[in-house]
Amino acid sequence: MASLSVSRHSHLLSGSIPARSKPISGPTRVRMSLRENGPSIAVVGVTGAVGQEFLSVLSDRDFPYRSIKMLASQRSAGRRITFEDRGYVVEELTADSFNDVDIALFSAGGSISKKFGPVAVDCGTVVVDNSSAFRMDEKVPLVIPEVNPEAMQHIKAGSGKGALIANPNCSTIICLMAATPLHRQAKVLRMVVSTYQAASGAGAAAMEELELQTREVLEGKPPTCKIFNRQYAFNLFSHNASVLSNGYNEEEMKMVKETRKIWNDKDIKVTATCIRVPVMRAHAESVNLQFEKPLNEDTARDILKNAPGVVVIDDRESNHFPTPLEVSNKDDVAVGRIRQDLSQDGNQGLDIFVCGDQIRKGAALNAIQIAEMLL
Amino acid sequence: MASLSVSRHSHLLSGSIPARSKPISGPTRVRMSLRENGPSIAVVGVTGAVGQEFLSVLSDRDFPYRSIKMLASQRSAGRRITFEDRGYVVEELTADSFNDVDIALFSAGGSISKKFGPVAVDCGTVVVDNSSAFRMDEKVPLVIPEVNPEAMQHIKAGSGKGALIANPNCSTIICLMAATPLHRQAKVLRMVVSTYQAASGAGAAAMEELELQTREVLEGKPPTCKIFNRQYAFNLFSHNASVLSNGYNEEEMKMVKETRKIWNDKDIKVTATCIRVPVMRAHAESVNLQFEKPLNEDTARDILKNAPGVVVIDDRESNHFPTPLEVSNKDDVAVGRIRQDLSQDGNQGLDIFVCGDQIRKGAALNAIQIAEMLL
Repeated sequence: MASLSVSRHSHLLSGSIPARSKPISGPTRVRMSLRENGPSIAVVGVTGAVGQEFLSVLSDRDFPYRSIKMLASQRSAGRRITFEDRGYVVEELTADSFNDVDIALFSAGGSISKKFGPVAVDCGTVVVDNSSAFRMDEKVPLVIPEVNPEAMQHIKAGSGKGALIANPNCSTIICLMAATPLHRQAKVLRMVVSTYQAASGAGAAAMEELELQTREVLEGKPPTCKIFNRQYAFNLFSHNASVLSNGYNEEEMKMVKETRKIWNDKDIKVTATCIRVPVMRAHAESVNLQFEKPLNEDTARDILKNAPGVVVIDDRESNHFPTPLEVSNKDDVAVGRIRQDLSQDGNQGLDIFVCGDQIRKGAALNAIQIAEMLL
Repeated sequence: MASLSVSRHSHLLSGSIPARSKPISGPTRVRMSLRENGPSIAVVGVTGAVGQEFLSVLSDRDFPYRSIKMLASQRSAGRRITFEDRGYVVEELTADSFNDVDIALFSAGGSISKKFGPVAVDCGTVVVDNSSAFRMDEKVPLVIPEVNPEAMQHIKAGSGKGALIANPNCSTIICLMAATPLHRQAKVLRMVVSTYQAASGAGAAAMEELELQTREVLEGKPPTCKIFNRQYAFNLFSHNASVLSNGYNEEEMKMVKETRKIWNDKDIKVTATCIRVPVMRAHAESVNLQFEKPLNEDTARDILKNAPGVVVIDDRESNHFPTPLEVSNKDDVAVGRIRQDLSQDGNQGLDIFVCGDQIRKGAALNAIQIAEMLL
């Protein structure tokens, strides 16, 4: 197990455990996923928040591998990582890194993916890329395993034939984990989404800045503003992604475009407003759905209860619904506040509230589920 | 000036000042609003967060009065308050409190309003009530002065004829301050609202608990959970109001019903999802609007720039949009992220993002603007 930099925040993340989630692995856990017949894998960006979570999820899921390479920028090269009771030295990512690598998990930003993704493919590696670099490339499958596994069924690891597979944006994954089972039943025509996004989406440094700023503000000091250029503690703000000429920011347009690609329907109407809130590592989303066919809220709840990777937390009497804290470090996306939308006629609308761990299902877990389908 | 209990949080609330907002008054400010020809006023619930803000706003706006009574429960009676350089002793609220009171500002909860509101009216007092007790009473005007002043035009203070006027819910006020100017132009058919609500809506004790919990969590201690019965620090949760049989909570239904009453249109379609976020005293709202007539985003922006009590913060290039921190302690409601909704055809939809100080325009300021119209 690596010494996770994100585990510094574990005391901010204590929540009760919803049903069906796996316990997180601790540093004392002894696992051995090394297997002669497993693939050789590489983790690109291993020192980042998602890179560290890749290791955590690989271990939790007992992912089989015959070897693992820890890759990062020159700046991090030479750092030591202990993973599953073995010591590794972080290697610098170069064009030669992918010889004999069957599967590479990338999470080092779009420019690294653009530069080294094709290099890895040329070496016969299947790249599962967490950046936005290739998501809208028509030749690259954009996959949530529970939603559209068929998009990558032609790709296998270890065949010597390289390929790219893109991991969707975290907000898109979390939204569609809940919306897809309902879409299959009643066909979504339009979605209005407002997000409540955690610091983790901007990386481990953003989480650290939120913690630091909060301490400073409580002490009456001016907050350190390096990552977001504004006070984040006890505040919220429109997502830091660039704003495009149509007034949407890039995060919102990812939700619009990726939903259409994943659902393979260019007519799906989506609008989104993406907001950062002072929460550490799990996103929440308020989702208003308009359907082609009537869909009763009780039917919707039953569908969601039976959906893989989804847990329903919808206790009206005790006012217990999904919260970011409860899904932090958990695999499942939690859904609640499931109710018939009063503003739509004929039972053709629903409001739901969704929470999911941004680093886990929103990034690392989804990527490793994709990798599992390659075996 | 009273020693405001909420001013303890001032170090959590430093933000830059948007245009057209008034500076907040400080304890060194010398004001004299005592005037022989002003009304006699009473503040009911003067020791609470909104009660304290009543005093702050009365002073800021140089509200004229010939006398002022500080009223609260027996528990707070006897406390001393300095207001505009005079000393006052908090008196216990009783049935005899309203003799010779022209205007009473109530913010002591619904049950106090229900018990003492009619008593005050019988004494010839005009009651401006901040609770939800009378909001949906057909005989009681529900007023946002910038929106529907005509609803209370038949009521005057000092005539000896008592009356009740209700202050809307904070989330409704903040939403409608932005939506009404657009509604007048293009007629809103449907609104989908998701809120990001501050601690202050649950009172000064909730603000204190958020601060205390945050300190505890940062120190690795379990958080004190008295007000909300859960961790609020670095977390968010569905609004604590009771959930009704239709799955909406009371806060959400206030937005639905109050909008219809204030706009005097029973056909307005509204859905809302109300969420508490770890912010001190200003609410944010993501509002999706569907209009009867086309409304261009540039026209909408111009309309909002000219709307009273509204400030537009909509700088796409520098990613500067409204934040709770920037509107804290400010009068104006800030609107930004004004853009044509991609999910609606024919320019008949807009997305906007609104922030407003929950204690000020969401409660005390709105009530005192109502009181000003009574003079």
